[in-house]
Amino acid sequence: MAHHQFTMTRRVEFADTDMAGIMHFSNFFRFMEIAEHAFYRSLGFSVHPPKDGDEPRIGWPRINASCEFHAPPEFEEEVEIEMLIEEIRGKSVRYLFRFWKTGDDRRLAATGRVTAVCVELESKEGGMKAVTIPDEVRANIEEAPKELLEKV
Amino acid sequence: MAHHQFTMTRRVEFADTDMAGIMHFSNFFRFMEIAEHAFYRSLGFSVHPPKDGDEPRIGWPRINASCEFHAPPEFEEEVEIEMLIEEIRGKSVRYLFRFWKTGDDRRLAATGRVTAVCVELESKEGGMKAVTIPDEVRANIEEAPKELLEKV
Amino acid sequence: MAHHQFTMTRRVEFADTDMAGIMHFSNFFRFMEIAEHAFYRSLGFSVHPPKDGDEPRIGWPRINASCEFHAPPEFEEEVEIEMLIEEIRGKSVRYLFRFWKTGDDRRLAATGRVTAVCVELESKEGGMKAVTIPDEVRANIEEAPKELLEKV
Amino acid sequence: MAHHQFTMTRRVEFADTDMAGIMHFSNFFRFMEIAEHAFYRSLGFSVHPPKDGDEPRIGWPRINASCEFHAPPEFEEEVEIEMLIEEIRGKSVRYLFRFWKTGDDRRLAATGRVTAVCVELESKEGGMKAVTIPDEVRANIEEAPKELLEKV
Repeated sequence: MAHHQFTMTRRVEFADTDMAGIMHFSNFFRFMEIAEHAFYRSLGFSVHPPKDGDEPRIGWPRINASCEFHAPPEFEEEVEIEMLIEEIRGKSVRYLFRFWKTGDDRRLAATGRVTAVCVELESKEGGMKAVTIPDEVRANIEEAPKELLEKV
Repeated sequence: MAHHQFTMTRRVEFADTDMAGIMHFSNFFRFMEIAEHAFYRSLGFSVHPPKDGDEPRIGWPRINASCEFHAPPEFEEEVEIEMLIEEIRGKSVRYLFRFWKTGDDRRLAATGRVTAVCVELESKEGGMKAVTIPDEVRANIEEAPKELLEKV
Repeated sequence: MAHHQFTMTRRVEFADTDMAGIMHFSNFFRFMEIAEHAFYRSLGFSVHPPKDGDEPRIGWPRINASCEFHAPPEFEEEVEIEMLIEEIRGKSVRYLFRFWKTGDDRRLAATGRVTAVCVELESKEGGMKAVTIPDEVRANIEEAPKELLEKV
Repeated sequence: MAHHQFTMTRRVEFADTDMAGIMHFSNFFRFMEIAEHAFYRSLGFSVHPPKDGDEPRIGWPRINASCEFHAPPEFEEEVEIEMLIEEIRGKSVRYLFRFWKTGDDRRLAATGRVTAVCVELESKEGGMKAVTIPDEVRANIEEAPKELLEKV
């Protein structure tokens, strides 16, 4: 069975806040990545496995990321992070994220998107080289149904 | 004279990197904000001035942020951050950012956008309330010419 | 019943690592604070409660912090954070932390200490002013027994 | 000529602050590292040079770090970071740091210490292995005179 969705919660920590008294906006991008990695862990994968012999290591650098901010999470608030796979291409995956405030009333805090590309790290050519998503990963993930992607 | 552009450099620090050996993508968003604040400082403003009597404090939370990543900056590399004002509306400003690698060869590392909205913090209604950009700020900033915004 | 101990786990995230492939050392200090705050939450307190009328807000800035690093946690490893109250004084509390690696074999990753002082934020004198720990907090915490503090 | 001292300034950025309105204490440890790395850059070294053929890479993980906090730096304040070499041993270096507020009046903000050990990363035995400080580094650094270390 392939998977297209993952949900987790994450508490806003003191170091996540800024002097305006809310979570600093850059942390939404860290939270997106945390949910993405937890999703793959739930499937039995690591996005950055330890080096295995002479095999080039696989990595998933981001090629774009965006976020619309609606209502800032506050200190100690538990944020629900909902991740959906929006699109799978040969070498890249685009994720959609919805952040929900769970304090006084459940409200959408933010909506984000990240596209990650599959690469060989330290490739023979030097640097990173985009490669086709490995079969064992590809077989386990699928695009989310349109109705899930569109509903808010 | 109103201003529409600002350029600064920033070195990638060890704590900015991740185990893939490059700058973690969330730091591009911190760098955008650093350039934005330095721009206002260069005009004689602080984006978060100390409280002044009973005047409500002004703040500039982000309503959206995005980034396209082209080439990752490396540890100790100086990144040139170029900021342009893309659009000024009554209560918000949208900035365009170009990040340039300055290592072996000058290359575009990333392109980003942030929209910040002017708010009263701790407004009488509680929380933050969008307000018109203060005159003394508005008089000092202007939209960048199209040819600057379009050229890469 | 007063409390002197708290234990939690925390996974090392990608953004916590650096280009040396391990958790950046500054994150141990964030982890200490996370455990401290979770401890107080478990007692029904927040270390930074929302403003309540004209009461000055209480905060807990750090007056010192230290850490001995033994074995670096790796990406995706769950670190067990053990917190003990080492000393309670009139206006301050000193915590002892032990970080345990839970990967291949259970090993001590680091040992840390933090002293936090109770202050009124935005006091009438301006800035922060050290004050006696509030009774409702003081009644709920106690120093850990010596044998717990000494054993490793 | 060997070197024992380095001074730089660093502005407190918005993302460095927390909801208490001051710089989050964990950032002092990042600032220590920033000054340490800038010191070595000023001598022509990188603390984490790119891989050079089959030579094992050298790294400088921390074995301990501590900080006494006296007066918190505020948003946009320039902090002067003074670094002194307190002790050089065969495989490790201990640094002393003094942080100075440069706002209204020059005051000591914090005093910190870090001990870094020289290691081979990815050693043949796996993991990191402490090694003697390379000659070309050792020849360029020296312990600071006692009077500099003691004066505040």
